[in-house]
Amino acid sequence: MSGRLDVVGIGPGEAALVTPAASAALAQAQLLYGYGPYLDRVPAHPGQSRHASDNREEMDRAAAALDAAAAGARVAMVTGGDPGVFAMAAAVCEAIEHGKPDWRALEVQVHPGITAMLALAARAGAPLGHDFCAISLSDNLKPWEVVEQRLAAAAGAGFAIALYNPISRARPWQLGAAFACLSRHLPPEVPVIFGHAVARAAEQVVIAPLAEAATQPASMASCIIIGTRQTRVVPRAGLAPLAYTPRRFSA
Amino acid sequence: MSGRLDVVGIGPGEAALVTPAASAALAQAQLLYGYGPYLDRVPAHPGQSRHASDNREEMDRAAAALDAAAAGARVAMVTGGDPGVFAMAAAVCEAIEHGKPDWRALEVQVHPGITAMLALAARAGAPLGHDFCAISLSDNLKPWEVVEQRLAAAAGAGFAIALYNPISRARPWQLGAAFACLSRHLPPEVPVIFGHAVARAAEQVVIAPLAEAATQPASMASCIIIGTRQTRVVPRAGLAPLAYTPRRFSA
Repeated sequence: MSGRLDVVGIGPGEAALVTPAASAALAQAQLLYGYGPYLDRVPAHPGQSRHASDNREEMDRAAAALDAAAAGARVAMVTGGDPGVFAMAAAVCEAIEHGKPDWRALEVQVHPGITAMLALAARAGAPLGHDFCAISLSDNLKPWEVVEQRLAAAAGAGFAIALYNPISRARPWQLGAAFACLSRHLPPEVPVIFGHAVARAAEQVVIAPLAEAATQPASMASCIIIGTRQTRVVPRAGLAPLAYTPRRFSA
Repeated sequence: MSGRLDVVGIGPGEAALVTPAASAALAQAQLLYGYGPYLDRVPAHPGQSRHASDNREEMDRAAAALDAAAAGARVAMVTGGDPGVFAMAAAVCEAIEHGKPDWRALEVQVHPGITAMLALAARAGAPLGHDFCAISLSDNLKPWEVVEQRLAAAAGAGFAIALYNPISRARPWQLGAAFACLSRHLPPEVPVIFGHAVARAAEQVVIAPLAEAATQPASMASCIIIGTRQTRVVPRAGLAPLAYTPRRFSA
């Protein structure tokens, strides 16, 4: 079998944040699969076909890409950020485990990318400078009680927290509930860093204390980092402040 | 003031995983600072001076780089992986907060990179496919009790866990103690993924159950991912197994 599947992370948006390995895999693919807005970021290559699908059709998309690869094509699955962080790599693995036997014989390579929290942290300073975690606020695939348990455990244990999938039209109240939950475990002055469309044209980064976090705008294009009790915000005249979490623990 | 400081993540090792933004920042710098083995990975540019320092001299290195930038130079601080993940970005921010007043007036840009856990996860499948955390096992800057509290909180709440700085000559017992701690909170069959020198010539990836994790070799060049109760290992004839954590939560 000559087909193969590359699962390619294209980072947060800026072309200069796509790794050369990812660019090469995309250039060599005969078929590209992915969510439409991610495919739109990939430079055109002659003879390549593109198969856009909706955000929520992940298992169908994985199956279509695996079928094409099993038929002998060189296929790329395009994902924003990093494929392994709340993106397509897990869906592809799940499809392989439960799908057609010949899918297990395919060469599959995951190409890592700059995930949203790393791009946002770089813009803000170093808010993930000590132990940290990443939590998806989507309750499509896990009960909301589990989300709250994880927020409480992470805040209680002193992790900085990156929130993915914070809000959408179908999930309007979860972000407010998350801030309310975090406020029971963290002081009101803990810095919260909001990143909107980081590394894209509409980029905005805002830092607000946890007590005021619920009043900040957020969207599907947001990633949000909750600092720890140790996180510092350093003001700078004429420049954006630097938010960072010190490497040294202090109680 | 015309000087500036770029804090540049060069990823896990492979040149194809260095972002174009990072490469451009390195090419434009007049002075490079960093840990020697990271500087050795940066292509030479004429007229550039290099200032290597030891792994443990992070605050002195940050101060030297900030002084050079404040004197008008274009300076790059080189770090492996991502600068914001157990690397130099937090040390630079800390130096700016507590250092000379003119350091606060400097333009500082952090360039994100592929951090070790993302490179390892990509090689293994998608073990960080659901909520996860990153913990440094170094007890140089935090008490060991805090490390164990965080391991227990993360395992108890169902996070996959990436371990950074797992072991060194000066810290020989901490990794074994971490596995013992995790074994009190997780079943013995939970998959543990060992990555040695990922994306470098000596790369090795091994998957073992938690019960056997303590017998696996590890070094300063290792990153280790502990799966969750849901993490799956999919065997494939003639190919490496795929380890992944499903997107859907199941109790």
